Amino acid sequence: MAGVMLSLDDVRAAAGRLAGVAHRTPVLTSRTLDERIGASALLKAECFQRGGAFKFRGAYNMISSLDPPQRARGVVAYSSGNHAQAVSLAARLLGTSATILMPADTPPAKLDATGGYGAEIVTYDRYTEDREALGAALADERGLVLVPPYEHPLIMAGQGTTALELLEDAPDLDVLVVPVGGGGLIAGCATAAKALRPGIRVVGVEPATGDDTRRSLEAGERVRIPVPRTIADGQQADIPGKLTFAVNRQVVDTIVTVSDDEILYAMAFLFDRMKLVTEPSGASAPAALLAGHVPEVAGARAGAVISGGNVGAARFAELMAGQ
Amino acid sequence: MAGVMLSLDDVRAAAGRLAGVAHRTPVLTSRTLDERIGASALLKAECFQRGGAFKFRGAYNMISSLDPPQRARGVVAYSSGNHAQAVSLAARLLGTSATILMPADTPPAKLDATGGYGAEIVTYDRYTEDREALGAALADERGLVLVPPYEHPLIMAGQGTTALELLEDAPDLDVLVVPVGGGGLIAGCATAAKALRPGIRVVGVEPATGDDTRRSLEAGERVRIPVPRTIADGQQADIPGKLTFAVNRQVVDTIVTVSDDEILYAMAFLFDRMKLVTEPSGASAPAALLAGHVPEVAGARAGAVISGGNVGAARFAELMAGQ
Repeated sequence: MAGVMLSLDDVRAAAGRLAGVAHRTPVLTSRTLDERIGASALLKAECFQRGGAFKFRGAYNMISSLDPPQRARGVVAYSSGNHAQAVSLAARLLGTSATILMPADTPPAKLDATGGYGAEIVTYDRYTEDREALGAALADERGLVLVPPYEHPLIMAGQGTTALELLEDAPDLDVLVVPVGGGGLIAGCATAAKALRPGIRVVGVEPATGDDTRRSLEAGERVRIPVPRTIADGQQADIPGKLTFAVNRQVVDTIVTVSDDEILYAMAFLFDRMKLVTEPSGASAPAALLAGHVPEVAGARAGAVISGGNVGAARFAELMAGQ
Repeated sequence: MAGVMLSLDDVRAAAGRLAGVAHRTPVLTSRTLDERIGASALLKAECFQRGGAFKFRGAYNMISSLDPPQRARGVVAYSSGNHAQAVSLAARLLGTSATILMPADTPPAKLDATGGYGAEIVTYDRYTEDREALGAALADERGLVLVPPYEHPLIMAGQGTTALELLEDAPDLDVLVVPVGGGGLIAGCATAAKALRPGIRVVGVEPATGDDTRRSLEAGERVRIPVPRTIADGQQADIPGKLTFAVNRQVVDTIVTVSDDEILYAMAFLFDRMKLVTEPSGASAPAALLAGHVPEVAGARAGAVISGGNVGAARFAELMAGQ
């Protein structure tokens, strides 16, 4: 297909690099969930991935692919969240150093978690400084390779191993539901899924206030929206990536959106009924199923990705107040 | 050994009945936990068991062992908690009916969970009525078999399959840490563990206010204490069972206690670091490790049972307020 820049082979190559390093996360089911949504749901639980989210798959795939002199110099990333922990952990496992740019007002728990994997943390003022420029300057000055959160074929391919594993465990899926932030996870997952099972329908899920990919796919070009306000802090992208959008316009069938309340309901449901710890972004795909936003799952076998579980007990308690 | 009324063979027979029915729950590890306690910890996660707790193992083992006419008449149990759900679920799977006596002021969520498995719920006033007499009367009147929460060899043997599986997955354990309520879980687990690995040290964990088994083992006879006040509602026994005590005095090495605060700390740790949902009783064994109450684990391989995860998101949020 013209313009294809990501293939099943890329995802398979990533799976080879991740074998024995990333966790093969479980695929979980619930009779109660199935009864509630009128479908057979298979949840790929990336909350149990190393670093607590799917991000490790992409970071490790990219860093392990660097040639030895590049890798020896170290890597840099900017993130206040799961990507920071993923890059730190992957760098440590691969024997190199990571420098992570984090906003100065990042919660201490997140700074600790990232520092705990051995990364050097450089803070910046998120209101007056530009993290992309700072990251580029650091990379240039120190000769570091920048590891982006989604905008790279090796990142997308690594993240796509999530769907590769899910389809190995459940080859007969009719629908695959994947959360969308910058679009790397769904790009890799949809690429793998469509190649393995051409008839599968791939549905992305965005927060209602953060539907930049939905709008972009409708418009046929990348659309920028105001930075979304949502509890789903892993899905606050304001514009799709260039590369992820180029892939997703070919392999994603549709995007649906969920409200913060629908996400909170899903977090409580997953906790109560399946004993799963999910962060808001991590629960958005099951939230779309529970809220009835994916009518094509009726009577079908629906895979859904729980993308992460990095929420502290205190923050979880705060979010659940009133649920 | 004189007086032995429970053997490894009983536990193995139970494992045979449970094969393909109970979940083989995962054994989970955490580098952070190991660093914190200076040991290699292996957590048997019964929060992922059917019905959300280890109780299913005993209930199913007993009900599946009834002869056909007995089983056809149905079973009765009294419990406001995990045992109620376990008996209801086991009865449904075995094609019989369950009647569950529950206090009239049981939270609606627990009534629903139990009723959801198809049991008939009979409520009573816990302040004016005697549940044991009511249960016996119902059993008599309707010809039902009473399924006790711990005081039966088949219940203890079924619950002991928890340790049988753990030792299959981790045969070289030095210490096994198990929560103690009525004493059925530890009776079955210690029986299996001591038979498979005679040198293993078995440590029970009780709430600090509910140390009836610790006192009883010290006294050499069953000691009754005031009904304990603790958040660990699965461990509010005020006196050990006759049968469980007779077993435990032979196979349990020592009992340690944990405070409610130590349990809450462990619940938050397990949530934050391992993405595990645990109820207070379910977290008491890891709590003893984290609080340093089991010094014999230093440098050793320590198994610990997470006995259940039946806590709602709202109740969890309440408990975590201030953590």
